[in-house]
Amino acid sequence: MKNLEFQNVKLKDGFWGFYDRLNRETVVKSVYDRFLETGRFDALRCDWKEGSPNKPHIFWDSDVVKWMEGVAYLTEQKSEPQWEALVDEMIQNIADNQRADGYFNSYYLSIDPSKRFTNRGHHELYCLGHAIEAALAYQRATGKDLLLNCVLKYVDLVYKIFVEEQSAPFVTPGHEEIELALLKLYEVTKNQKHLDLARFFINQRGCNEKDLAFGYTEHTQNHLPLRELAEAGGHAVRACYLYTAMAMLAKTDDDEGLKAACHRLFHDITNYKLSVTGGVGADHRGEEFSYKYDLPNSDTYNETCAAISLAMFAGEMQEMEADSKYGDVIERVYYNGFISGLSLDGEKFFYTNPLEIDRKKYARSTYQPICERVKVFSCSCCPPNVVRMLASIPRYAYTVDGDTVYCNQFMNSETTLSIGGKDAVLTQTTNYPNDGKITFRYQGEPMTLFVRIPDWCVEYQGATEKGFAKFNLSDGDSVTVDLPMEVHFIESNPYNQDNSGRYAVQRGPIVYCMEEIDNGENLRDVTLLEQGNLRIATEEGIPAPVLYLDAERRPATDRLYSLKNETRVPFTARLIPYFAFANREASDMLVWTMVK
Amino acid sequence: MKNLEFQNVKLKDGFWGFYDRLNRETVVKSVYDRFLETGRFDALRCDWKEGSPNKPHIFWDSDVVKWMEGVAYLTEQKSEPQWEALVDEMIQNIADNQRADGYFNSYYLSIDPSKRFTNRGHHELYCLGHAIEAALAYQRATGKDLLLNCVLKYVDLVYKIFVEEQSAPFVTPGHEEIELALLKLYEVTKNQKHLDLARFFINQRGCNEKDLAFGYTEHTQNHLPLRELAEAGGHAVRACYLYTAMAMLAKTDDDEGLKAACHRLFHDITNYKLSVTGGVGADHRGEEFSYKYDLPNSDTYNETCAAISLAMFAGEMQEMEADSKYGDVIERVYYNGFISGLSLDGEKFFYTNPLEIDRKKYARSTYQPICERVKVFSCSCCPPNVVRMLASIPRYAYTVDGDTVYCNQFMNSETTLSIGGKDAVLTQTTNYPNDGKITFRYQGEPMTLFVRIPDWCVEYQGATEKGFAKFNLSDGDSVTVDLPMEVHFIESNPYNQDNSGRYAVQRGPIVYCMEEIDNGENLRDVTLLEQGNLRIATEEGIPAPVLYLDAERRPATDRLYSLKNETRVPFTARLIPYFAFANREASDMLVWTMVK
Repeated sequence: MKNLEFQNVKLKDGFWGFYDRLNRETVVKSVYDRFLETGRFDALRCDWKEGSPNKPHIFWDSDVVKWMEGVAYLTEQKSEPQWEALVDEMIQNIADNQRADGYFNSYYLSIDPSKRFTNRGHHELYCLGHAIEAALAYQRATGKDLLLNCVLKYVDLVYKIFVEEQSAPFVTPGHEEIELALLKLYEVTKNQKHLDLARFFINQRGCNEKDLAFGYTEHTQNHLPLRELAEAGGHAVRACYLYTAMAMLAKTDDDEGLKAACHRLFHDITNYKLSVTGGVGADHRGEEFSYKYDLPNSDTYNETCAAISLAMFAGEMQEMEADSKYGDVIERVYYNGFISGLSLDGEKFFYTNPLEIDRKKYARSTYQPICERVKVFSCSCCPPNVVRMLASIPRYAYTVDGDTVYCNQFMNSETTLSIGGKDAVLTQTTNYPNDGKITFRYQGEPMTLFVRIPDWCVEYQGATEKGFAKFNLSDGDSVTVDLPMEVHFIESNPYNQDNSGRYAVQRGPIVYCMEEIDNGENLRDVTLLEQGNLRIATEEGIPAPVLYLDAERRPATDRLYSLKNETRVPFTARLIPYFAFANREASDMLVWTMVK
Repeated sequence: MKNLEFQNVKLKDGFWGFYDRLNRETVVKSVYDRFLETGRFDALRCDWKEGSPNKPHIFWDSDVVKWMEGVAYLTEQKSEPQWEALVDEMIQNIADNQRADGYFNSYYLSIDPSKRFTNRGHHELYCLGHAIEAALAYQRATGKDLLLNCVLKYVDLVYKIFVEEQSAPFVTPGHEEIELALLKLYEVTKNQKHLDLARFFINQRGCNEKDLAFGYTEHTQNHLPLRELAEAGGHAVRACYLYTAMAMLAKTDDDEGLKAACHRLFHDITNYKLSVTGGVGADHRGEEFSYKYDLPNSDTYNETCAAISLAMFAGEMQEMEADSKYGDVIERVYYNGFISGLSLDGEKFFYTNPLEIDRKKYARSTYQPICERVKVFSCSCCPPNVVRMLASIPRYAYTVDGDTVYCNQFMNSETTLSIGGKDAVLTQTTNYPNDGKITFRYQGEPMTLFVRIPDWCVEYQGATEKGFAKFNLSDGDSVTVDLPMEVHFIESNPYNQDNSGRYAVQRGPIVYCMEEIDNGENLRDVTLLEQGNLRIATEEGIPAPVLYLDAERRPATDRLYSLKNETRVPFTARLIPYFAFANREASDMLVWTMVK
């Protein structure tokens, strides 16, 4: 059972069509402009001198190559000569400055080459991991293999230093990512060394004496051998990249211990540590997973990259077994906590994605998340991650197992695949997530189509298997799945103390929020009326419906304390999709509201 | 209109009788033992040497003399020879080590006398202020004037340095308190220099160039001339000590500008910045007043000393005008956020008084309030403040204006006073706050008694003037005021975003809380049933009733998110007086609950 390559899915107009176009027309340039301004591309020349502006940073290479990876995906679908020329120039800079032994890292080559591979906490292997992914994507898109040759040489060096010589002062990288990249590389090269190196990093992690010198902490997933992990913990982005690699290796090696660990981790995240928006890494201190059910709202972290990496983990898990829960999580991430990281104009980003903004509180707080999206961060991992994720958004849409096809995500699209050894075409026609009607049309040899029935669709009446509706399709067949899409009020577990007495509003996969700019001050005092009027409106500039609900709030008073009373002021609340928050002026925002 | 001296009020059995006995029998010794162990008394010998244990601290003198002040009050009511002997010894140490010019501070005399009066942020004048109060109390209680003579000499030195020479690098003290102490001193000595010095510190504050070098901040009330203050701000204890002095001076000087400022500040505190428990200083960062309506629960500061100093401010204000609002605030403080600072066994203390304890949250938080009372703090201003406040608790019970007497606080007691130039006796017979029935019996010349009708008593039907019920009493009269004492659910202003949808339970002056130890986990998920059964129980060891209310909570579930549903598990919630929280094992606690 394998995820169908995203290149097989051609998006048409619709929700993801909107973002696909936005990415190609705006986002990729917006990130490029910021990286150019901040010297990230220049850094590849490795000629920065002390006293010059834009001192290279240890993770800059990863920013650049993630952007390249996104450009490669875009290029593969439709030629983008101007971007390709720029990427070629960057790759040439890398090739020109790569050391004879294969080493490349613009930070160390500019600042102090003698210090390479001395600091476990630095991001050298993380940068290489992303470079591997970019190289694979660019080679596939353009046929050009200069970057791939560079990284192959670099991987050989890493294998020599870490596996053969064991000459570095640490054994596994402080910031994971290379593991999953090596496994992607192995898929293409089938070079056993690439698999062995990934396996080495995974097997050594959390059980190696040398790494202890750099701290034996959960923060870097360094506290237990990975097969013993029972709880997701530590830095959420690192964790989910690692869990993704663990799932990949578990499948490659048919490793039951790793599989069991992956199942435990997925269960722990999705049953205890997942924001209703699909965000993970609730604790801003250390950007970490918090304890079970601790999902604060205004000071949550929920980094965009963490949501992306969770989707990647779920995407690998859905190759392990047919179960709709993986697609459910990916959908929750995609339509909420991932896409919230990007402004509707495609030019600005969020690094963290809070579920509540209270600007007065922030003004006195030691933790002060940004309340308005910005064009660039000093730590700018998220924007290029958005570019590459958007450019490959159908990556987990389908899973194929012989003549059985699982449709995990709904996207207005035309998909080519191979059934019974012959080409086949499966189209989805849908306005999802505006409504829940999806019509599949099929041309090809007979096949079985399993369509995910989302966890939110409790009104669905048909039979399901592991959360999928089953259809046998022959050439020329079409079938329509109509998912009732009601407005739901969602409660969280009683152990989540932040949301007691409060509810999230969700319609289809979209979680909603209220902004002060629409609903006035004191958002936490608003009560939505469950039996009140509801209007679902499609509005210019927001690619999913806006909700208008009858609501009420307490009247203004000059008393600090009063006797409980039932006097309320009615009004119509405007709820916008969570992902669309903070696209106007600065405003308080709230997801979890009172409902009666 | 003057507050009747507390020495005129003899407490009998009852709520304050309980605490009076506890103070005399336990609290005073508990604080003594801790101060002895930590070297605070030894420090008065000023012979500490580098390398020895128990290095003196800049504020230790204030701890010791506040304890002395408490002992003096206890001694005045009933001789305590063993304490008196110890205090005499301490005072002798002070006298022996006082410099010829009058200076005394055990920290500077031990560590580096040359540095005296160089650091505005240090607490020299604060220590002197408390010493003045102790000296006045001890002289009055025992007739012994050694300490008073010491402080008089020291005050002369301070006058010389600060007013005449202006030779210190700062003009007003970083930590206020001396201002109110000097005004108390002036009341006794009628020495104009004492009044002038207090007036100097008050008039110079916030408008002196020299002080700017130490920071022009609201934290130390150094940002505006005091007559221009419109909002309470900065460190709450310092602020309220200062406001107390401002009110005293405003009355002494009939200073309209100061009076207006005091009225604005009192309004600002009580209308925007007062916890329902009477706590102030909501922001633990800097122990400060926060912005209007910001009254967080689990991470509030609400230092015991801040509650005490607010009661002092209100106590001075109630001499300015007949208005029950001052007695209301004092009552809220006394029965809640002040007495919560002391354990029921009289041996342990709280420095901060949160309205919610969530130990799991604290475990990951940068701010970690203690969740169990402790015997001593390194910064131990609160415990001796509790001793002296308890020993003088009827201080603001009555205000007298000729033959008009205002009863502001209810205490089972016998009070002597002078009406029409003759001795009179007014007794209160009451179980307050167990119930609201107070019987006054009077012997003396005709007088008018105004009895405060508390703000919580919305069911009271009689006529009131400025919140007082009026009675004309002649010799032998008695009158009973019966305040209906219902259980109330209190809501806070909609601008207080922390408490939207939540209510405080209050009966009479007592605010209630739930503890996990009684009510299980997830206190924030409990909903009290407004129309359910209610039982009011008197229980051993808690000097105010306990409440049992029908309640419900959501059933346990293994789902992180569910559709809103009405399934609830009924149970009987046990609510204890807020002041009694944290007297058993460590437990989560909650004041603001859901009610339906």
